[in-house]
Amino acid sequence: MITKIDHLGIAVNNLEESVEYYEKALGLHCHGREEVASQKVKTAFFEAGDVHIELLEPTSDDSPIAKFLEKNGEGIHHIAFAVDDIAGQLKQASAAGVRLIHEVPFDGAANKLVAFLHPKSTHGVLTEFCMPKK
Amino acid sequence: MITKIDHLGIAVNNLEESVEYYEKALGLHCHGREEVASQKVKTAFFEAGDVHIELLEPTSDDSPIAKFLEKNGEGIHHIAFAVDDIAGQLKQASAAGVRLIHEVPFDGAANKLVAFLHPKSTHGVLTEFCMPKK
Repeated sequence: MITKIDHLGIAVNNLEESVEYYEKALGLHCHGREEVASQKVKTAFFEAGDVHIELLEPTSDDSPIAKFLEKNGEGIHHIAFAVDDIAGQLKQASAAGVRLIHEVPFDGAANKLVAFLHPKSTHGVLTEFCMPKK
Repeated sequence: MITKIDHLGIAVNNLEESVEYYEKALGLHCHGREEVASQKVKTAFFEAGDVHIELLEPTSDDSPIAKFLEKNGEGIHHIAFAVDDIAGQLKQASAAGVRLIHEVPFDGAANKLVAFLHPKSTHGVLTEFCMPKK
């Protein structure tokens, strides 16, 4: 079951400029930064209610985020739903005809298991499921 | 102050097909539908935690959503932040150099005051502020 939206991933060209926008223009507080080598991005985190906003700047031209920016420009990259049974959730999506990017969840940031659905079968929204590891 | 994410607006080509996806593949429950004549859209609503997901299908070729779909295809159209002082929030954004689509909030759906920031000055994310009317 989907319990909430865990986070929104937003692709940006320049992390510092975007952090400044989220802080000064929106008044949100940046509560962390992290470089994720496996995804070739550096990130900054904000909270709005119980949803995290994750800004993503590519650190390399072959980062998935670099490719997204090239094609679409800055904008919302993905939505991550917190689920209570990630294997069951993937099975339900697959049974409904959704193409899975990951058939098996893998270790994501913040000690969570994560998996993505393909945006071609989610009506244009790159969709992540995530669940805290037991 | 931003208190939470109120809703995400997602542009879709066909409301019925997308409702089926959100229900069957994601297991979310559609708790309402509405046609908004002023925006030339028909909508369907879901909840994930305390965030609403609003699917938007244009009812006319000159709907803002029709233009978005033509340019970008299906995907997340806007993010709406719930705020406790919409006039103050717009003033803060403007002072930080953000271009406002609406200088003065107007009556939106669900008895709320709403106003939008221009995506050219929000790093690609069409951003709405909304606040319940007193």
